[in-house]
Amino acid sequence: MIHPSASVSPKARLGANVSIGPFTIVHDDVQIGDHTSIDGFCEIGYPSPLAQGLPLVIGAHSTIRSHSILYAGSTFGDKFITGHRVTVREKTTAGVNFQLGTLSDIQGDCQIGDYVRCHSNVHIGKMSKVGNFVWIFPYVVLTNDPHPPSAVLMGCEIGDYAAVATMSVVLPGVKVGRGALVAAHSMVGRDVAPDTVAGGSPAKYICDTSKIKLKDGTERPAYPWTSHFQRGYPPEVVAGWSVPPAP
Amino acid sequence: MIHPSASVSPKARLGANVSIGPFTIVHDDVQIGDHTSIDGFCEIGYPSPLAQGLPLVIGAHSTIRSHSILYAGSTFGDKFITGHRVTVREKTTAGVNFQLGTLSDIQGDCQIGDYVRCHSNVHIGKMSKVGNFVWIFPYVVLTNDPHPPSAVLMGCEIGDYAAVATMSVVLPGVKVGRGALVAAHSMVGRDVAPDTVAGGSPAKYICDTSKIKLKDGTERPAYPWTSHFQRGYPPEVVAGWSVPPAP
Amino acid sequence: MIHPSASVSPKARLGANVSIGPFTIVHDDVQIGDHTSIDGFCEIGYPSPLAQGLPLVIGAHSTIRSHSILYAGSTFGDKFITGHRVTVREKTTAGVNFQLGTLSDIQGDCQIGDYVRCHSNVHIGKMSKVGNFVWIFPYVVLTNDPHPPSAVLMGCEIGDYAAVATMSVVLPGVKVGRGALVAAHSMVGRDVAPDTVAGGSPAKYICDTSKIKLKDGTERPAYPWTSHFQRGYPPEVVAGWSVPPAP
Repeated sequence: MIHPSASVSPKARLGANVSIGPFTIVHDDVQIGDHTSIDGFCEIGYPSPLAQGLPLVIGAHSTIRSHSILYAGSTFGDKFITGHRVTVREKTTAGVNFQLGTLSDIQGDCQIGDYVRCHSNVHIGKMSKVGNFVWIFPYVVLTNDPHPPSAVLMGCEIGDYAAVATMSVVLPGVKVGRGALVAAHSMVGRDVAPDTVAGGSPAKYICDTSKIKLKDGTERPAYPWTSHFQRGYPPEVVAGWSVPPAP
Repeated sequence: MIHPSASVSPKARLGANVSIGPFTIVHDDVQIGDHTSIDGFCEIGYPSPLAQGLPLVIGAHSTIRSHSILYAGSTFGDKFITGHRVTVREKTTAGVNFQLGTLSDIQGDCQIGDYVRCHSNVHIGKMSKVGNFVWIFPYVVLTNDPHPPSAVLMGCEIGDYAAVATMSVVLPGVKVGRGALVAAHSMVGRDVAPDTVAGGSPAKYICDTSKIKLKDGTERPAYPWTSHFQRGYPPEVVAGWSVPPAP
Repeated sequence: MIHPSASVSPKARLGANVSIGPFTIVHDDVQIGDHTSIDGFCEIGYPSPLAQGLPLVIGAHSTIRSHSILYAGSTFGDKFITGHRVTVREKTTAGVNFQLGTLSDIQGDCQIGDYVRCHSNVHIGKMSKVGNFVWIFPYVVLTNDPHPPSAVLMGCEIGDYAAVATMSVVLPGVKVGRGALVAAHSMVGRDVAPDTVAGGSPAKYICDTSKIKLKDGTERPAYPWTSHFQRGYPPEVVAGWSVPPAP
């Protein structure tokens, strides 16, 4: 299960049935859960003094795709799934079933909840807080410095079930409320109220999410998205959403 | 021509005079045309159930630069040229002489015409349709989901000879007309008429492309761009453009 | 210090105490200064006819992180530091202590001053001129073609001590003045005067930088940033700024 061209430190702690692909490097301070698969060309547990001696912990049943780099000091729950060439720096914690798309870059010191989905090329600045069941789409940047460059770091907060659409920036310290939607190509400088849509550069209130209808011919409400989109979530989670099943 | 550190499946079908660089992995379901060169650190024919058993087909006289990942199930015409670290997923088809810049990411199920140029860091969502002789510039995103997240996919269409300038987003289902220009940093939410310029966030009609003059001292019209820019196209294609040669 | 899996050309000229990581390829036309460290999976001195026979020169005490690609023909001063997966093409010159973040892409023929910091995912087009002590933040694009596609290249200029915040585009030929600040998510189509803030899409004058106060509880001025942010600069440089030290 470990490719002969891979380089795995004897200090790394690998669970049962872990596979490591060609040319991948696993450094010293690494703990990998059972049944996890890591592709080729990865660096796992990249050493850094900012990790302060903490290990990289990857949960069980995870999939790390090729050319990815995960620093020492971060912790990912079970069923972590990445695209290719992701980078995650030190001291980020993510809950279960975090999906992180190709080319995404998490700068460290972030808190990420359960069942979060980041699509390709998402950039999450240091000190960001991302809730549970959040969706972040390509080329979104979560920032932290209110007057760059400076040593002041004010992380954003993205509430549970919120979605931030492609190529939007969330300014330092801004909170996007539970179930809110940030429209594509927006610059979000003020807090977004729960269950509302904000958009534009600068972003303004557009409407409540309840006004948006599904473009699938049914005219059903598109939000909360949990009412019609359940793909990839386990049945016990979907059951907890207490929504009528899709027709 | 195959570097000794490369790993090439005996099931892959390689044409004459194919070269494979160091540490590159060529998987089973791969067909590579004659005289094609693949750099190091690539994964060619990355396996996926979404490929549905289809092979990756790369045309003759192609160049794949280092750290690129091409999934099984896609097909590229002759003279395909990539930058570094491109990613193309399953079941995309591209015509001849597609040029795909460094860090670009094509999500799969796309149709791409002949002689298309994507610069660095272009993100093309699933179900996009890109015509012939199209230009797409850095940090452009073509989207597909009208109310994210959902299972509704409405791909964009980019017409022949159109150009989409840097850091613009094209919203789901939007059509950019033949020969149109989308200005930089635009959010395109409505169709763009042929041979017009649209720009802004949200994008609006600015002028006809015929009003834009070349900033090379000649004051000639800048569009159609085929009248002055022919670099990299074969003579028989340029001859078909029926335009006066550049002075 | 050279990993046994690395491939280093005997023509490359390596200084004293240079280290080369696993699987890294060092091509022929390369000069590396003393005490420089290069991670794994890199391509150093990628050959190109556009380099016109010039070597890649990397100064002493530099750090090149993994998966980076540096073309032949460019020159970097001492204490060059990169993130992961950077790409720099031919004939760019950078001064001392250039810091280039993960996934950044410099297209070649650029002039970059001393002590410049580019964060992650910065895209610098050909012919750009970047002064000294400049800061460029994630997803910024410096452009060059006033009517794409064309053969007319008009590089931007970014003045000393200026900062360009995240996801902004600077249009071809535009000059951002000394000490100016471009706000996040801006499209900069006109010159920005020194020590002013410009923002929006299109960007307009917002205020003088002197009006912005530090959000650290002190209400001190946030600009010039050299008055409060000195991390990572050598003491003799900070002394030259002639500013009162941070309290």
